[in-house]
Amino acid sequence: RINGDRLWDSLMEMAKIGPGIAGGCNRQTLTDEDAEGRKLFQTWCEDAGLTMGVDKMGTMFMTRPGTDPDALPVYVGSHLDTQPTGGKYDGVLGVLGALEVVRTMNDLGIKTKHPIVVTNWANEEGARFAPAMLASGVFAGVHTLEYGYGRKDLEGKTYGEELERIGWLGDEDVGARKMHAYYELHIEQGPILEAEGKDIGVVTHCQGLWWLEFTLTGKEAHTGSTPMAMRVNAGLAMSRILEMVQDVAMSEQPGAVGGVGQVNFSPNSRNVLPGKVVFTVDIRTPSQEKLDRMRAKIEAEAARICEALGVGCSVEAVGHFDPVTFDEELVGNVRKAAERLGYSHMNLISGAGHDACWAAKVAPATMVMCPCVDGLSHNEAEEISKDWAKAGTDVLFHAVLETAGI
Amino acid sequence: RINGDRLWDSLMEMAKIGPGIAGGCNRQTLTDEDAEGRKLFQTWCEDAGLTMGVDKMGTMFMTRPGTDPDALPVYVGSHLDTQPTGGKYDGVLGVLGALEVVRTMNDLGIKTKHPIVVTNWANEEGARFAPAMLASGVFAGVHTLEYGYGRKDLEGKTYGEELERIGWLGDEDVGARKMHAYYELHIEQGPILEAEGKDIGVVTHCQGLWWLEFTLTGKEAHTGSTPMAMRVNAGLAMSRILEMVQDVAMSEQPGAVGGVGQVNFSPNSRNVLPGKVVFTVDIRTPSQEKLDRMRAKIEAEAARICEALGVGCSVEAVGHFDPVTFDEELVGNVRKAAERLGYSHMNLISGAGHDACWAAKVAPATMVMCPCVDGLSHNEAEEISKDWAKAGTDVLFHAVLETAGI
Ligand SMILES: NC(=O)NCCC(=O)O
Ligand SMILES: NC(=O)NCCC(=O)O
Repeated sequence: RINGDRLWDSLMEMAKIGPGIAGGCNRQTLTDEDAEGRKLFQTWCEDAGLTMGVDKMGTMFMTRPGTDPDALPVYVGSHLDTQPTGGKYDGVLGVLGALEVVRTMNDLGIKTKHPIVVTNWANEEGARFAPAMLASGVFAGVHTLEYGYGRKDLEGKTYGEELERIGWLGDEDVGARKMHAYYELHIEQGPILEAEGKDIGVVTHCQGLWWLEFTLTGKEAHTGSTPMAMRVNAGLAMSRILEMVQDVAMSEQPGAVGGVGQVNFSPNSRNVLPGKVVFTVDIRTPSQEKLDRMRAKIEAEAARICEALGVGCSVEAVGHFDPVTFDEELVGNVRKAAERLGYSHMNLISGAGHDACWAAKVAPATMVMCPCVDGLSHNEAEEISKDWAKAGTDVLFHAVLETAGI
Repeated sequence: RINGDRLWDSLMEMAKIGPGIAGGCNRQTLTDEDAEGRKLFQTWCEDAGLTMGVDKMGTMFMTRPGTDPDALPVYVGSHLDTQPTGGKYDGVLGVLGALEVVRTMNDLGIKTKHPIVVTNWANEEGARFAPAMLASGVFAGVHTLEYGYGRKDLEGKTYGEELERIGWLGDEDVGARKMHAYYELHIEQGPILEAEGKDIGVVTHCQGLWWLEFTLTGKEAHTGSTPMAMRVNAGLAMSRILEMVQDVAMSEQPGAVGGVGQVNFSPNSRNVLPGKVVFTVDIRTPSQEKLDRMRAKIEAEAARICEALGVGCSVEAVGHFDPVTFDEELVGNVRKAAERLGYSHMNLISGAGHDACWAAKVAPATMVMCPCVDGLSHNEAEEISKDWAKAGTDVLFHAVLETAGI
């Protein structure tokens, strides 16, 4: 069993870096706070005897050697970056849980055949630089390094510039490492485990996603002196598209979601009808067929809505992954570990995207999930219990041991 | 007749300060560009023999003495501040047209009984600090000075701080000046004069307005892992309110408008359902009855929409003026001037709010309007012809002469 108190202390320690304003965290990718969090994590890892490698996207790989010189490592990790108003556990539990697995191995004098690599993927959240899971996507060959470096935040700063600025541009080629397997522990970020009273989610699949960034072009005009009939109202078109996305998601129930988290009006002045409205539609479902259909419906309907209003409409896919099926053997290891340890468990489909989704492209991969209060995440009020964190990390420990071999 | 070339040159010279990115201007209230524009205007006025007074809201009063020591001044002006993506004429024509009137009087050696005060009201646009027509509102006793100083921009900077920072905090008590009359020349900002082929709008009324700032409170949550049924979606509520505002305005046709120019999502991250959405509804109509009814309908419907979604809804009126009827005698002077000079004219109701609306509370007031291309304003592409500018200023000149007395 892992040390639940030590794990919890580390979580609380990390949460002090880039504190939020309401009990959570604001440690966004490639900010000074991100750099500070990485430094603390590096220190902890080195104290646990791990050796650091950093790749050209800024992902940190902390290696505990194995006994078989020919065996590929088992990677275990998640991400330390957060949303602007994020929680203390989303991602962080997976990284510090992996560190706790290694600390426990040290305590117990366990040597594994395969090396263990505790991993902190860069820019999982995609809040500052879209898309999410960027560094693991480059690692898996889904994106090029150039694409990664070129991603821009709202101020126009690029990923490449900011990675260099915070001093975490590594020298390893991205994706050069070969993995024997990949495990990731994460909070569910949804309500199912808590509602069902289960300790452990055995994650069999992950929903697919599209982020569709719409740019609507209206005619900037005075809100007072422009008659209704003369308006080319991009804001109204945006409204209709939001309502339509809701309808499309509802028509695909159960097992589909759709919504909009980011909207930007230009010039965003009270007495100017917007000349430009940019917003991103987020749709997800575990079914490839539904995902394709939802995207097609939304793009077609949006075009119709805009045409009726004379509003220009262009769409760019700024994020995408297809539904993922995790590795059967690894999924079995998680289930067996939960059973062996006496934790209640159930199968889950991940609602959120995770680095494990991209890792699954290049290695057998799966995830372990633990409940979170009210299913709440991407909110500073995100909360879990110490017992849940311990149970998830215990299961991670046993599943990793199974794959890494003693 | 005024000097159309000199007027046009001054307009083009002023437009170089705070240039836009698409041929217009970005000279927002109390920015460094505003200060620079004021300086240039002051120089021109002093070259024309005018004496400056500045009040505690930063409004500039440039006086040309009259021959009767007991006669109250005739005020003539508008505003030099612009929208973030504004045009070269909105407001500026009224200020530089007033200056041209005085320059022409100087050229012709005309002395008037009443002094003439060329006026540059501060913060007419209300883009950076809501509400619009702020300084003239304080002047007319509609707002207190404390209210004016406390207005905040999106960065949280206050009007009072910024006025002092740019060096244009004057020493005159606001509203201490007494006016014999107030005239304002302005571009129509709407399509009617151009469509009707008229040179001059004789402005009899101005529509009333409400700016209703809605703050919707939802539940920040993950866009992927939060099931549709668990969402408290403030963005969806905003969409429905925008559509409803459109419906309310359409149901009051003709003679009513409604729209939204400013929307702010929080935290505005692609994979976070917004915890907060703040936006301002702008409704206007010349009918007091309609204005009251529209406001009541919108607030009631918005409350219903939010309740159905479980979204919190609060509304603050951040701008308001009732419909205005301008002074009959002054309106007659404008009509007579247009006739005398041979310009085609028609009665108009102003679609936009103007400092003249507040001035009308403390003195006889009216406006002169000239057409603008496509009725377009609050857009960098705002355009007028030199002939239109000259005609409007000629009419202003004659109407002012009538009231100021020779
Ligand atoms: N786990 C998580 O919140 N990842 C961010 C990417 C996503 O939006 O699913
Ligand atoms: N004239 C003008 O655009 N004034 C700004 C105030 C308003 O929105 O009407």
